[in-house]
Amino acid sequence: MIIIGEKINGAIPSVSKAIASKDKDFIKNLAENQAGAGAHFIDVCASTEVSVELESMKWLIDFVQETTDTPIAVDSPSAQICAESIKLCNKPGMVNSVSLEGDKIDVIFPVIADTEWECVALLSDDTGIPKSGEHRMQVFSGIMEKAKEYGIAPSRLHIDPLVEMLCTSEDGINTVLKVIREIKEQYPGIHVTGGASNISFNLPARKYVNQAFIVLAVGAGMDSAIINPMDKHMMGLIYAAEALKGNDEYCIEYINAYREGLFGPVK
Amino acid sequence: MIIIGEKINGAIPSVSKAIASKDKDFIKNLAENQAGAGAHFIDVCASTEVSVELESMKWLIDFVQETTDTPIAVDSPSAQICAESIKLCNKPGMVNSVSLEGDKIDVIFPVIADTEWECVALLSDDTGIPKSGEHRMQVFSGIMEKAKEYGIAPSRLHIDPLVEMLCTSEDGINTVLKVIREIKEQYPGIHVTGGASNISFNLPARKYVNQAFIVLAVGAGMDSAIINPMDKHMMGLIYAAEALKGNDEYCIEYINAYREGLFGPVK
Repeated sequence: MIIIGEKINGAIPSVSKAIASKDKDFIKNLAENQAGAGAHFIDVCASTEVSVELESMKWLIDFVQETTDTPIAVDSPSAQICAESIKLCNKPGMVNSVSLEGDKIDVIFPVIADTEWECVALLSDDTGIPKSGEHRMQVFSGIMEKAKEYGIAPSRLHIDPLVEMLCTSEDGINTVLKVIREIKEQYPGIHVTGGASNISFNLPARKYVNQAFIVLAVGAGMDSAIINPMDKHMMGLIYAAEALKGNDEYCIEYINAYREGLFGPVK
Repeated sequence: MIIIGEKINGAIPSVSKAIASKDKDFIKNLAENQAGAGAHFIDVCASTEVSVELESMKWLIDFVQETTDTPIAVDSPSAQICAESIKLCNKPGMVNSVSLEGDKIDVIFPVIADTEWECVALLSDDTGIPKSGEHRMQVFSGIMEKAKEYGIAPSRLHIDPLVEMLCTSEDGINTVLKVIREIKEQYPGIHVTGGASNISFNLPARKYVNQAFIVLAVGAGMDSAIINPMDKHMMGLIYAAEALKGNDEYCIEYINAYREGLFGPVK
């Protein structure tokens, strides 16, 4: 399971404040703690105004790189900012994200084509998030055509099927689970990723919904997640779900992660 | 989701002690707390020596019935004790359990044939727990033939596919998940049940494995569980998993269960 640590995001008020006040220690702590908690990538999203976004990204990326060797996921709604941010990183990381919206994919794929950079690709296009599973699979096919065109191997892609709010969904997450299964059947080496926060919007006790969603998604084949790695309960459930799916012979990874303190006994 | 409260079981040391010392209040509290926590059945298992088991069952059943209207699941490895215990109950409940082992099913099914009693049926036979999914489905077919013979509707049966230890399993729980899906496909009205404690045997931080197992099993179609309803985290995940599977329109059951305090915010 590939863990993308989500905590350095300017959309989080405390991070926004740290960016505004240039609080290096706050950012360094977030980077260090996420790396120590088992993150394989540290997501960096400034969420500042466009005019200062690249400057903010540079500041954030520099301090993350001073703190940890864990690669960075450069995260911006702007493909241009992602492309510029790539140049600021001292090793290959991940772009978060492209989709079939606008020219995003044609901005990013050429830049990462002959590199080891990985890339999150959202299953959305200019019409937004497709309602049906069929439409999402069409978007997926469009992304894979572009990947082939630029010579980007499926194993460098993390497909995010995009989960909508559960409270207004008509079939729960069955469509998303089906899309995950189909993607992994078509390309066994590809990664499927996703976040867990949208799903529980407007519901009480959101963590139960987030946790159960991640377990079901791992069950369907998700092998990458954009989460808070310091949430030890979520980490325990992810390692458990991987073992239950038969992806962890004799539960060795589960036991090792427990020994490393990535999760612990439920108090 | 049908919750069978597992706490009144003589295999649990504190319960064994309460049975030995005839501590009524201890048993009454367990019954009351489980009913209040959302149990639909209160399992009663004496786990005492055969010579005094029926006497222990009578004592336990009497105090549970004095305390709550929630029906009882009479639980014994002996079909005879189950059959005798049925007579001690003042309303239809559940037998826990039969299987294709010995003459269990031919002792119990005639007794409950023309009643509203429900019954847990384990997918095991005289050879023990079948290794393959195919063999389990054969056992299932044998159970359904018997049910047909005695006129017991599938909706009164709770099939327990029997989960073995994860740490020595070769394919995780994929076989069990497949069996659950096949059972529900063949008989949409049947219940699939199970406990969560065997699965995590010999592993650290067992609750993560138990919780992830139940979520994946609910995802595959399990709609009944033998658990501790006072475990609010497990209850939250179960309600969340049901909503995620599209079984809870607009999450109304999830929200109501939250309002009733069956689970709460994760602290």
